[in-house]
Amino acid sequence: MRAASRLIRDIEDKLPEAKTKIKKLYAHTGKSFIIGITGAPGAGKSTLTDALITQFRRKNKTVGVLAVDPTSPFTGGAILGDRIRMQKHAEDPGVFVRSLATRGALGGLSQAAGNAIHVMEAMGKDIIIVETVGIGQQEIDIINHAHSVAVVLVPGMGDEIQTMKAGLMEIADIFVINKANRAGAKQLQMELETMLNLSDKAADGWKPPIVLVGDAFDPQTFSADTAELAHRIEDHHVYLQQSGKLTERMHRKALAEIHDALSSCLLEPIVQTLTASGEMKRFAEKIKNRKADPYTAAEEIARRFFKQGEEK
Amino acid sequence: MRAASRLIRDIEDKLPEAKTKIKKLYAHTGKSFIIGITGAPGAGKSTLTDALITQFRRKNKTVGVLAVDPTSPFTGGAILGDRIRMQKHAEDPGVFVRSLATRGALGGLSQAAGNAIHVMEAMGKDIIIVETVGIGQQEIDIINHAHSVAVVLVPGMGDEIQTMKAGLMEIADIFVINKANRAGAKQLQMELETMLNLSDKAADGWKPPIVLVGDAFDPQTFSADTAELAHRIEDHHVYLQQSGKLTERMHRKALAEIHDALSSCLLEPIVQTLTASGEMKRFAEKIKNRKADPYTAAEEIARRFFKQGEEK
Repeated sequence: MRAASRLIRDIEDKLPEAKTKIKKLYAHTGKSFIIGITGAPGAGKSTLTDALITQFRRKNKTVGVLAVDPTSPFTGGAILGDRIRMQKHAEDPGVFVRSLATRGALGGLSQAAGNAIHVMEAMGKDIIIVETVGIGQQEIDIINHAHSVAVVLVPGMGDEIQTMKAGLMEIADIFVINKANRAGAKQLQMELETMLNLSDKAADGWKPPIVLVGDAFDPQTFSADTAELAHRIEDHHVYLQQSGKLTERMHRKALAEIHDALSSCLLEPIVQTLTASGEMKRFAEKIKNRKADPYTAAEEIARRFFKQGEEK
Repeated sequence: MRAASRLIRDIEDKLPEAKTKIKKLYAHTGKSFIIGITGAPGAGKSTLTDALITQFRRKNKTVGVLAVDPTSPFTGGAILGDRIRMQKHAEDPGVFVRSLATRGALGGLSQAAGNAIHVMEAMGKDIIIVETVGIGQQEIDIINHAHSVAVVLVPGMGDEIQTMKAGLMEIADIFVINKANRAGAKQLQMELETMLNLSDKAADGWKPPIVLVGDAFDPQTFSADTAELAHRIEDHHVYLQQSGKLTERMHRKALAEIHDALSSCLLEPIVQTLTASGEMKRFAEKIKNRKADPYTAAEEIARRFFKQGEEK
């Protein structure tokens, strides 16, 4: 477990050794069921993740949790918050919780998340929960590492957040209406039902269920509701296996992983070489002064690094 | 104007012609002042942008607005919303408003935003406002196209949103407390003041001002407050010019642009070649079945496309 923690830290810090280790453990990955939890800030994702850990542990499943936190590129503050919230599982060797923050300015968070998931897969976790805020494209890339995605909504979070529903509709396998004791829960449920009926989501055999989860301050209801949620997630897993969709998703995931790997094996070395030689700086000056444009510069670089025959 | 609209649409759709056109107009870019407006969903960014257009038009500045909308990758729904909101400027030839949504699954939204800004620069707009939701890394990449960034907060938006303050602190040149007539505005202002005093933000000569903007339903106050905001933004522009920071930011922007261009000139053609030949699919199958790992596959591809001497 300590080795796994260190490797995840190395992935986050983009150490070259991490890549070598991922290569080695890759053969031991691909057996876990990966659940994505997404939704707006304040929707209660961490509390739900915490409850799902409890539910899956009752079924003797081992659980890994990766909280990908877009608020922490600068401070790391929210990481601590997540860890504290999940502290009640800290003593349980069947549970492994880690957070991931953006460090590098040039993104790559989705790739880091994919690799951190691989570490947890290689640890043999039965279930891995990836938690992220469901807003930007990058967060959608992250959630695409999951086999099954639960989108968390809460009643009365305002217009703009509600418009997200439409975007999240595409990625949702299960909807959760959290804090469902609040006013507006039934209306939100009806709206979702209407949207689902209008969409073609059910066309390939799975209509996303809507699970209502009451406030965590009422432990009995909350426990029953999150048990129901765990149950629905398992239903979706069975559906994915039986319909062949799991294979399809894994193929898509593999494609995304090659793309990420190409970026880190092809692009990054070139950038490093040019930065070390000071050429990157000279190119930037020329572009800044409008004596060159970025594409012409990039094409000049491409000609230098590429084999003539393959370049087009 | 119609040509500009078409070009922005082509950029969004990633048509190869768009790149050629950007190359040509690049020499005419770099003269506009670019303002970024960011904040959580529901913070009132569009209303503020709308008010800023009015303020800058009063000073006879021409204005371009780019609303980058992370909620619309799937539906495009929010785009319409933005346009409707800014419709009162629709008849004004000095104002050009466009929205950008994510189309491609593999990101590149930041690059598209940068190019759409270039189009508006080449149109000769004095001021360009880029509006985005300030959450993920990608949104931060987008806002980095701006010279001056205003972060919009509202009182009482809950804990998790407030934690964003810390992250947004890093990118903020100006803070806006919007809907400042609401309870909690003064407290939010004090919290921000404290954070600013604790940080080293003022170290290089600019301490981000905090501008309170009252509710848009009180037109007189709102107009006075947004005039103040426009004024503060102009102050920051002067500061950037006089301190040499504008040159610094433009150099950084040029570096980011080369990086984006390298990705589209080096990486994308390789992916296209391998996809067309069916190899990408075969690689994905091998990875899916754990007969290969993504990095070994990417290295194999790198060996084929790179010149031996340059590859390392």
